[in-house]
Order: sequence, then C-alpha cells, then structure tokens
Amino acid sequence: MKLRAGNYFEDFRLGERIAHPTPRTITEGDCALYIALTGARNALHCATPVAQALGYRSRTVDELLLFHIAFGKTVPNISLNAIANLGYADLRFLVPCYPGDTIRAESEVIGLRENSNRRAGIVYVRSNAYNQTGELVLTWVRWAMVNKRDPNAAASGSVVPTLPDVVGADRLAIPPFLKAAALRAEVTGATDLWDDYEIEERIDHPSGMTLDESDHTLAAKLYQNNAHVHFDAMAMKETPFGRRLVYGGHVISVCHALSYDGLENGFAIAAVNGGTHTNPTFAGDTLYAITQVREKWALPGRQDVGALRLRLLGIKNLPAAKLVSPLAADGKYHASVVLDLDYTVLMPRKGSA
Amino acid sequence: MKLRAGNYFEDFRLGERIAHPTPRTITEGDCALYIALTGARNALHCATPVAQALGYRSRTVDELLLFHIAFGKTVPNISLNAIANLGYADLRFLVPCYPGDTIRAESEVIGLRENSNRRAGIVYVRSNAYNQTGELVLTWVRWAMVNKRDPNAAASGSVVPTLPDVVGADRLAIPPFLKAAALRAEVTGATDLWDDYEIEERIDHPSGMTLDESDHTLAAKLYQNNAHVHFDAMAMKETPFGRRLVYGGHVISVCHALSYDGLENGFAIAAVNGGTHTNPTFAGDTLYAITQVREKWALPGRQDVGALRLRLLGIKNLPAAKLVSPLAADGKYHASVVLDLDYTVLMPRKGSA
Amino acid sequence: MKLRAGNYFEDFRLGERIAHPTPRTITEGDCALYIALTGARNALHCATPVAQALGYRSRTVDELLLFHIAFGKTVPNISLNAIANLGYADLRFLVPCYPGDTIRAESEVIGLRENSNRRAGIVYVRSNAYNQTGELVLTWVRWAMVNKRDPNAAASGSVVPTLPDVVGADRLAIPPFLKAAALRAEVTGATDLWDDYEIEERIDHPSGMTLDESDHTLAAKLYQNNAHVHFDAMAMKETPFGRRLVYGGHVISVCHALSYDGLENGFAIAAVNGGTHTNPTFAGDTLYAITQVREKWALPGRQDVGALRLRLLGIKNLPAAKLVSPLAADGKYHASVVLDLDYTVLMPRKGSA
Repeated sequence: MKLRAGNYFEDFRLGERIAHPTPRTITEGDCALYIALTGARNALHCATPVAQALGYRSRTVDELLLFHIAFGKTVPNISLNAIANLGYADLRFLVPCYPGDTIRAESEVIGLRENSNRRAGIVYVRSNAYNQTGELVLTWVRWAMVNKRDPNAAASGSVVPTLPDVVGADRLAIPPFLKAAALRAEVTGATDLWDDYEIEERIDHPSGMTLDESDHTLAAKLYQNNAHVHFDAMAMKETPFGRRLVYGGHVISVCHALSYDGLENGFAIAAVNGGTHTNPTFAGDTLYAITQVREKWALPGRQDVGALRLRLLGIKNLPAAKLVSPLAADGKYHASVVLDLDYTVLMPRKGSA
Repeated sequence: MKLRAGNYFEDFRLGERIAHPTPRTITEGDCALYIALTGARNALHCATPVAQALGYRSRTVDELLLFHIAFGKTVPNISLNAIANLGYADLRFLVPCYPGDTIRAESEVIGLRENSNRRAGIVYVRSNAYNQTGELVLTWVRWAMVNKRDPNAAASGSVVPTLPDVVGADRLAIPPFLKAAALRAEVTGATDLWDDYEIEERIDHPSGMTLDESDHTLAAKLYQNNAHVHFDAMAMKETPFGRRLVYGGHVISVCHALSYDGLENGFAIAAVNGGTHTNPTFAGDTLYAITQVREKWALPGRQDVGALRLRLLGIKNLPAAKLVSPLAADGKYHASVVLDLDYTVLMPRKGSA
Repeated sequence: MKLRAGNYFEDFRLGERIAHPTPRTITEGDCALYIALTGARNALHCATPVAQALGYRSRTVDELLLFHIAFGKTVPNISLNAIANLGYADLRFLVPCYPGDTIRAESEVIGLRENSNRRAGIVYVRSNAYNQTGELVLTWVRWAMVNKRDPNAAASGSVVPTLPDVVGADRLAIPPFLKAAALRAEVTGATDLWDDYEIEERIDHPSGMTLDESDHTLAAKLYQNNAHVHFDAMAMKETPFGRRLVYGGHVISVCHALSYDGLENGFAIAAVNGGTHTNPTFAGDTLYAITQVREKWALPGRQDVGALRLRLLGIKNLPAAKLVSPLAADGKYHASVVLDLDYTVLMPRKGSA
C-alpha cells in the first residue's frame, strides 16, 4: 500500500524529528513569479545594484517567498490532515537567501495536546530551514489542529510549549555587512525612515487587490504546498467553505505587498512575532491592509538601522480606512479581518549617511 | 498574401522533413513556472544538490516541460488544422536537458492515410528535438487527424507506419554517470523503491487539482503551443465543445504531478510508450490520478536502477478511489477518464547503496 | 501622515524631474513569464544561439516587456490619479536589454494643460529608462489626464509640447554589430522579408486570444504597475466600467504576439510612433489583430536590414477578417477596436546573405 495520507494526531511523538522531502533550489524564476503573484516592490528583492549597495551579494529572495517555500515542505508531514493552522511564533530570518540557494527543512515536535472530544489535537512544531551549506536561514514555530485517524487511539502526552510573545531586538539577526544608509529615497520612493514612525501610528494603505482562483493556486503550487484545501474544488464543495480556500501565506504576501505604500524603507523582514488567519479568504475577495506601529527598537551596536514592530491587518472587501477596529462589539474579530500579523522590519535611521 | 493557415492534409508528403521555427532556450524561469503550473515535486528537477549527487550537472528540466516545449514547436506546421491528436508512441528521452539549453525541433512525415469521407486524414510524424550542440534529446511519433482544405484534393499515398507498442528496456537511455543509489528517502519523502512495486498494483493518488482558464492557457503559452482551441473562447463557442479546450499535455503534467504521492522515487521519465486523450478537459474540471504498474524491468548492466512501466489514468470530477474500471460496460472509456498514458520511469533498486 | 495618494494635476511643475522608485533587475524569470502571459514567439527573445548569430550578446529582453516594466515605474508618480492614458509618442529603443540588466526610470514634465472645467488636466512627460551602466535604453513621451485634488487650486502654466508624428528612419537605433542576414527562415518560420511587404498591405492575423482576470493581473503585477483600476474589483464596481480594466500595455503585448503570424521576420521593435487605447478591454474579451503596412524605409548605411512602419489594430470579440474599417460611420473608432498602435520594426532585406 502506497497510501500517502499524511500524519494524523496520534502519529506524532514529542521530540520526534522529521526531515521534510523536496529540497528546493530557489531561482530567479521563483523571484519573478513572486513579483507577478503579489506585486511586491521591495527594492532589496528587485534590484541587484541596490542590494549590493546595501552590502548584500545580490538581490535577495523575498523573505516571505523563502518562508512559503520552507513552510510548504512541512505540509506533507505536519498538516496534510490539519483542520486549521492556528498560529505562528518566533519566526526569525537568520541568513540572507540568494537566488541559486537550495533550501531544505526539518521539524521537531515540541508540543502535543489532544482536544477534549478526542477527535483531534494540536501539534506544535519548531521548523528549521537550511541552505546548501548547512546554515540555518530561517526558523519558526507553528501549531495546527490535526485530525485523529482513530478517536480511540491513545495520544502521546500533553505538552504545550512556552513560546515568546515577541522576538526581542537582541534576537534579531542583523547582517554584519549591512550598510543601511545606502538605501536612498529615490530607490524606495519615500523619505520616511525609522525616526519618522510613531508608536500607535496607523497607516491605511491605499491599494486593494482582488484575488482569483488561478493566482492563489499558482502561488501555492509554486511553494509546493500540497494541502488539498487550496486545490480540490470538488472535495471542498462538501465542506462548510463550499470552495477552495486561499493559502493563508498568500494572504500574508498580498497584504504585505499592499503595505509597501507607507513602509517603503522597511527593506527586510527580520522576524514574525505571531500571526493568525482570523477568517478564510476566497477567490473573488478584495484584500486591503492596515499597519499599526507597535514598538520601535534601536539595535545593539547600530546607529544606522532600527527595527519597527508592526501589526499588519489584512481585511477583505472593506477598504482600509473604513475599518474602525479589528474587533467587533463582542470582542471577536470583525468578519472582514482575515489576517492579524505581528512582525518586525528593519529600517534605516536618520542622519546615518 | 501572408496568410499563415498551417498545413492541411493534402499539403503533407510522405518523407517530407520540416524544420520547426522558434528554437527556445529553456531557463530557470521556465522551470519555476512549470512548478507553479503543476505543483510538480520531483527532486531531480527541484534541487541542484540532489541532481549533482545523482551525477547530473545540475537540476534537469522536467521531462514533461521539455516535451511540451518541443511539441509546441511542431504545432504550427503539423496540427494547426488538426481535429484531434490521436496518439503518441515511441517517445524517448535520450539526453538530459539542463536550464540554459536551447531546443529546436524537426519532423518527418512517416505516414498518411486519408479518411474514407475524404474530408480529412491522419498524419503520422516522427519528431526529433535537438539541443544547442546538436544532440538528439528527445524523439517521438504522434498522429493527428488533420482537415483537408479541399475535399477533392488528391492525397499523397496511404502509408500507416509500424510503431512499437512499447519502448523496450534495451532502448531506454540510462545516463552512464547516473548514481541512482544517491537518491535518499529524506529527499523524496518515501522509502519505496523499484523492488517494492508489484505488477498489477494500483495506486489511487490522494490529491485532486481543479483547473482554471488562466493556468491552462498560461501553460500552453509557455510552451508556445498556438493551437486555437486552447485560446480563442469566441471561436470555440461555435464548436460542440462550446469553450476552450485544455491542452492535453497540461492534463498529462497535472496528472503526473498528482501521481507523485506514491511514486516518489521515480526520479525520471525515460519513455512514453503510448497515450490517448480519451475525453476533453475544461476549466473547472478537477483532475485525479491512478497509477497501475504494468511491468518491471531490470536494466542491462545496472544493479542500482530499474524501470517501471506504468499506466497513468487521468480522471475528471471523480476521486481516484471511486473509479472501478477505466472502461464502461460498453467497452468504451468511462466518461470521467481523460487520459490513458503508458510510460516508463527510472527508480533506484534496493540494496544498491 | 504616510498617505501615498500619488500626484494630482496641481502638483506637477513644468520642467520638474522625477526619479521613479524601484529599480528592477530583469531576469530570465521575467522573460519566461512574459512568454507565458502573451505567447510571444520572437526568435531574438527566445533563443540565445539565434540572438548570438545576429550579433547580440544573448537573447534580449522583449522590447515590450522592457517597456512595460519601465512604464510601470512611472505610474506611482505620474498616473496613479489618472482618468485616462491618452497617448504615447516618440518611443525609441536605443540599446538592447539583456536578462540580468537593471532598469531605472526618470521623467520630466514637458507639458501641462488644465481642462476648461478645471477638474483635471493633461500632464505630458518624457520618460527615460537607464540600465545599470547608465546607458539610456529607452525613451518615450506619454500624456495622461490627471485629476485635480482641489478644482480651485491654481495650475502651473499651459504648455503643450510639440511631438514628432513619427520616429524617422534616421532616429532609429540600429545596433552596429547587427548581422541581420543571419536570421534564417527555418528559425522564424517564414521567408517573407522587408522586400516582400507592400505599403497599404493588410494582414489579418489568424489567431485570437481570450483574456482572463488572472493573466492580466499577473502581467500588471509583474510590471509592478500599481494602478488601482487593474486590481481592485471592489472599487471598480463603483465606476462606469463596473469591473477591473485590463492594463493597456497587456493589450499591446497580446495583439503584438498575435501578429507574429505574418510578421515573423520583424525581429525587433525599434520605435513606437504613437498609440491610443481606443476602447477598454476586460477579462472575457477575445483579442484579434490586424496589421497594415504604412511605410517602408531603407536604413542609412545598411543593405541588410530595413524598417517597416506598421499600424497594429487590436480588436475585441470580432475576428480580424470581419473588421471592414477601424472607423465607424460617424468617424469614431468602431466599438470593437481597442488599440491603434503605430510602430516600427526591423526586418532583414533580401539578397543580403
């Protein structure tokens, strides 16, 4: 029997290590497709001379493209039978990824908790992605609710890991070669630097983007994320959703690309502190984005670059300026909010040139 | 008059040789798009370090991508006026194709048979694709029913070529440098090797993929296949189909990608013995795949790698496990079966490490 | 306030120079996507050995892909608040662009004219695109009607620039290294050369291509053209169009790709003399193309290559052969005509081999 049904909740063991199949050489082709799928305009990912002026070897692979490809590798082993991806934490980009690098991923099961109804349970994994020289380029924790094959099967222990709420400034990887002052306003289109953002400031990004079936499925296939919910419209017809679900990572990418207008000098994502997909997104939905500034951090030993901790809200079918609050009166997420992402970007500081 | 109407049946001459226009440099960009269009996960095509461990110079171009590009070149001269592509035979991949290689194609007319109603006829061609150094990388025979411009025109002879039912093991091109034992389970995601497959074994691949207009048309444009049936919805409205037809090669690619789960160590396609598009596929259809093992061949002089002759059935709007037999009670293909492909893959053998 | 609302008519100053953000390294990935989006088959852009035989360093970036990327850079500063892109003039391709080149763009405001109702005005800009070594690769003038933020705001002067109707043969950039005779019929698929085209000749190109939402939005995102009209279906519902507009440049590209059959040896676009988007195009429309030969020019000092000045008509939902005239009885454009483009291609001359 060569049934590839993926792991069910009772198949996971605490401390188990899983090497995920399908290492992937990420190429200029993937980078071009990522731009076509999202409209991303970050200069570090678009232009080699800009990247080199900043000290990088060449343009880098968009951090979110890298994440989606690495994440996609974990799907066949971790979440093929997931009911829901519940959250992310402690995601850190540690080493730049360049076109031509080959990425492989491994995961360790760091937590397991069966649901009280015993039909499913939450699996917590720490996943690590390595490049071809064995450097750890990216690490993250996620947890997902995974079905049991057999509700009567015994589950292995009950451990909920302690996770940091935020990746502190001291744990951000700032490339030692980085020359942040080389990022010029004529390249990014804006003069606002780290100093110009204020805590609690809210930016209603002006653009919206409507999703279609082909582009979200192309994205998920590019990431080799084979979760059935994104691809099989016939099977999805039998679910409460009634149709294919957009991969949550594509929602992150589109909202992040929409947030470029107002955050132009945030040249790289350093960490994702946490994130939730608060409502499903479908083809036909139009996405908008709001950013709120949560914290501003100077970085140890660096006068030229600071970090902004941001909240990125993804909204569907409601322009950014029309959302008063992401929470409805009952304290739950507004039905239009599809994404609540807490992440950290690097941005040049003033007077550092 | 610069009318480019393509050849009609009466234009073909037995033994005629045709050099097809538009040589194509296949790049990393094409490979990335192929993954995005199909979700293919074959490690040899995804990761250069894996390919190098196997002895290849770098990751190779997916055999089906190579075939579709080479096939697309033949369309303007051979099948622009085809009513139907009737079949393939004796397709062999002879030399690996790498990103950066440039492919051109030539065909020879090896058979012609007019229909009894004299309105059309069957054209048989042997097509060859060469790389930039003149090596023959791929060869195949196909036959198509092509309209006549003028039913009264005289047709040139009536010859039906003798074609092999199967590409025998001795005619498969196994790269002399190949180190098949280097393909590790952690890279492909499965431990099943050549020894683990049994003749008559059936694998119901678990995933389905719904097609949309944009992705099948992007695929056919990528392959520079300019057959009108795939692109011109307005003209297709006047046909019995009523809408655009999905390029049969895209159906092969999607079904082959779906068949990865269960055939993970089949690292390269060596030959296509035959194939038929048994029913049309349209945007909106969800494809599923079944593999049946037909034959197992040891390969002359190789202990490390064997060949599996497989039958790949593509089904639409019916999950694999629900198809009892590809044939209906009347002996014809079940209306859900869209593809019946007979092909041969290379797979490592046990104990060869 | 980090509102990125783009410039309004009263923000422009005559003689103002604008450096556009987001320089872009154009890669093999972009070239592959361009083929997938348009089906373009020009041999110079498809095959490195062909390009090298012609004297180029490698296959070149399709002139229209280069243009769309350069044009896209100007959108955030020039036309984010445009009501209509009114026209192009004096577009010249000066230096070949190769995969790996990085393009940046600058514009100068060369004309301003307020509408009599004072609610909007026409902005004329000369835009220049440079490669990473500072060479001017492409230059063009366009004019757009741009809204005023405040109808009562004073507008700066009223200057309408004098623009050439046509880019004369003496202003075309012919690469000195070009060996046009090396372009062979077996590579392009046609023997018709410059000598074989007659002034006033009309070519009804045989193919049609239906557009879908995903492919036109993928194209505009690839070009990083962030005009809202192409992406935000929700906002477009409130406009007279009722839905997303296809980027006019994508219409040019698709029609140009359709015109390959009949113009196969027109290996490079040298100039665009002028162009108008005469009607909107939407997903679901099927495009067809007609070419009329306007002028034939010998080129100074060259026996091997000539120029053809062509009129490319893009038509929707009407096959080329069915359009009697692009103008209706009232002297306005036929409702099916979406594009009227006047451009110049280079083509080998006979007997030059």
